[in-house]
Amino acid sequence: MGWFSKDIATMDDLFVHTLQDIYYAENQIKKALPEMATKATSPALKQGFETHLRETEGHIGRLREVFRLHGVEEQGINCPAIDGILEEANDVASEVQDKPVLDAALIAAAQAVEHYEITRYGTLVAWAKQLGREDCAALLKQNLDEEAATDEKLTQLAMDGINRKAA
Amino acid sequence: MGWFSKDIATMDDLFVHTLQDIYYAENQIKKALPEMATKATSPALKQGFETHLRETEGHIGRLREVFRLHGVEEQGINCPAIDGILEEANDVASEVQDKPVLDAALIAAAQAVEHYEITRYGTLVAWAKQLGREDCAALLKQNLDEEAATDEKLTQLAMDGINRKAA
Repeated sequence: MGWFSKDIATMDDLFVHTLQDIYYAENQIKKALPEMATKATSPALKQGFETHLRETEGHIGRLREVFRLHGVEEQGINCPAIDGILEEANDVASEVQDKPVLDAALIAAAQAVEHYEITRYGTLVAWAKQLGREDCAALLKQNLDEEAATDEKLTQLAMDGINRKAA
Repeated sequence: MGWFSKDIATMDDLFVHTLQDIYYAENQIKKALPEMATKATSPALKQGFETHLRETEGHIGRLREVFRLHGVEEQGINCPAIDGILEEANDVASEVQDKPVLDAALIAAAQAVEHYEITRYGTLVAWAKQLGREDCAALLKQNLDEEAATDEKLTQLAMDGINRKAA
């Protein structure tokens, strides 16, 4: 996006801009997940990251379909938010040696990622409906529901013993 | 935090690290909110940002109390996540001229901020309890509940007409 241009003139432009933002974010998350799975010690957490990698590939596929339905080229744009969230995840993970504490830190980092996706998909679903794109809204809602379920699973893993082992 | 040091050895260190992260984040949000209020056109949205600024000052006060109770000096650390989220909010807002579209963009940006806070406070409440710090957990839970309520209010504002005006 140009820093001195006014590139977002309409609600439709804002929708496409945010779609490009989450498309970039999903692709960055796809790159980050294998390392998170490698760092995890708890088998359930490791498995959770591997499952979510496959889901993320599915989310990217649905986003491509939304781009197609909406008649715009699939394209990502820089998303400083997800870059910052993933940078922070990396920073913290690199500072923790104790395995159970690292698992707790990885869960917190993954939940920050999930919440970013939940807020963006929540917005995109609402905007798609407002723009009369129920077809796009339905696909985006599927991604939203899977992100929310992943966040819930991460909370369960933390509560089911990872936080206790770490403390 | 040192890039090559292993500064987080225990769950307690991780708790304090994350407390410092959200303390920095809340202070950055406090600086960002007056401009968001200035940019908003909808009187209800403007009022919402002003109310949330006062709440944010309250959150910072509670965090200071948590630092005190836990016996560590109040201190922020760099938080690339909130920096990225606020940078993105600024970038998008600076590209939108149409007032109703800008209001919709501001709501989305504010909800990304809220979700970051919700995930961090959710984690901190769980960790505080695990560490036996019910006193800290209770204060952090108050911040969590107010952030969740703000997110809900933003959704209501979007649904009550801001998205429709923008589309």
